[in-house]
Amino acid sequence: MIYKCIITVRYAETDRMGISHHATYPVWFEEARSRWIAANGISYSEIENRGILLPVVGLHCRYLGTSDYMDSLCIHTQITKLTAARITFHYDVFNKDKLITSGSTEHAWIDKATFRPVNIKKHAPDLYQLMQRGMQESAV
Amino acid sequence: MIYKCIITVRYAETDRMGISHHATYPVWFEEARSRWIAANGISYSEIENRGILLPVVGLHCRYLGTSDYMDSLCIHTQITKLTAARITFHYDVFNKDKLITSGSTEHAWIDKATFRPVNIKKHAPDLYQLMQRGMQESAV
Amino acid sequence: MIYKCIITVRYAETDRMGISHHATYPVWFEEARSRWIAANGISYSEIENRGILLPVVGLHCRYLGTSDYMDSLCIHTQITKLTAARITFHYDVFNKDKLITSGSTEHAWIDKATFRPVNIKKHAPDLYQLMQRGMQESAV
Amino acid sequence: MIYKCIITVRYAETDRMGISHHATYPVWFEEARSRWIAANGISYSEIENRGILLPVVGLHCRYLGTSDYMDSLCIHTQITKLTAARITFHYDVFNKDKLITSGSTEHAWIDKATFRPVNIKKHAPDLYQLMQRGMQESAV
Repeated sequence: MIYKCIITVRYAETDRMGISHHATYPVWFEEARSRWIAANGISYSEIENRGILLPVVGLHCRYLGTSDYMDSLCIHTQITKLTAARITFHYDVFNKDKLITSGSTEHAWIDKATFRPVNIKKHAPDLYQLMQRGMQESAV
Repeated sequence: MIYKCIITVRYAETDRMGISHHATYPVWFEEARSRWIAANGISYSEIENRGILLPVVGLHCRYLGTSDYMDSLCIHTQITKLTAARITFHYDVFNKDKLITSGSTEHAWIDKATFRPVNIKKHAPDLYQLMQRGMQESAV
Repeated sequence: MIYKCIITVRYAETDRMGISHHATYPVWFEEARSRWIAANGISYSEIENRGILLPVVGLHCRYLGTSDYMDSLCIHTQITKLTAARITFHYDVFNKDKLITSGSTEHAWIDKATFRPVNIKKHAPDLYQLMQRGMQESAV
Repeated sequence: MIYKCIITVRYAETDRMGISHHATYPVWFEEARSRWIAANGISYSEIENRGILLPVVGLHCRYLGTSDYMDSLCIHTQITKLTAARITFHYDVFNKDKLITSGSTEHAWIDKATFRPVNIKKHAPDLYQLMQRGMQESAV
């Protein structure tokens, strides 16, 4: 249910405050989400190749600590909500066992050609089941 | 009370979905916030030079529409909450008069040397008043 | 012949060295190039809409000085070479009248559908002439 | 002498052309350089902690092919030149065994406090030797 991956902070991701810039975390969430999906048996590219996009419609982050260049961050990723129209991922970012950022992204299932919502349960039931299974099972 | 600025979408800010990447919006918020502060008579650099940092502790975005390369976006920025410990900015991003993204960032007043919270009302009352005035007055 | 534009350094563009990150300069070059093209009567989007892409095939930068958050940089952009297959832009970045970075980008005219080279002189003579005129005339 | 590392293309690193944005390659070079240094027994953070910075003074890229989201790129990194004042790294980026980008970065050894050049051979002979050994030996 929770997929863990490691990301190492790049120099370019720091700012003059001497810490990782806050807008980098959504990019890491995206990377963690990509790996969650890949770990569950499909790549996000394949989803797009099937004519379905999963754009971010909501983003929330709470910053509790900081990270710096070369820090190895462990991101715990899980799906916390899944409907025929939407999917929500939650992320906890740990720096040396300390929770430094918690966040979530909400996504809409949309049609690539029209950018209109699709009912994923009807439109691609296998994809819906894959996500549902990933939400319930452990994928560590 | 609401400061408006224009940002033009860069090519590098788009992604393979053919739209501006969602993680670019927090960077634009930061730019809009910088300009809000500058329009109110101080630069954020000066705040840092006085030993005070304003790191982001919370970030929220709701994406209602999209933008693409070369689009001119108008960002409306305002302070919605100010205490001795925290400050919250709210942003509305318009693309050709359509609201495409709404978001907010919460910041903590901290000491540059220790990264510990400071009571800005006591520590730098002139700064607190400047922010308070900016929150109340029109700065269009 | 030389088009000048102003870019203000964003906080996110700085790094822990306390200066603008070197990989931001190519992004600014791109922005300057976009504006050069727009100032010469066509937008780069329109070029892409006509089925032609101008990907970067070569990039060169020499860093002579630094810039920091909120610095207003003046970028001087010009075309230094134009053939039926390739086009080269040159950029000089000034920070308070001091040349801090010089660079160039070489681009290939390619077909959007096939990613194969096109002879722009034959394929889109009006575009070739527009670039040639921009190379020769002043567009300050 | 040549250190190999793998980097996977992030969604945020692609652009509306449907390929990795060209300005991402210098960021990957930096990541590869960090890993080269780490593989040779010191972290770049430690170098900075000793009061020495290695800013980029020259950057060259030649783009021969493209990469896209989720592609695993193999970067071959090596030092091609080392003096008391400067160091040059060379990078070859492979996508499925095809060389897609070749590049190099030239760096100056400078003092963190003054941003003035330092003679690394005299100032930190152990560091110079470490780099020299890394240049000569195999570190795969």
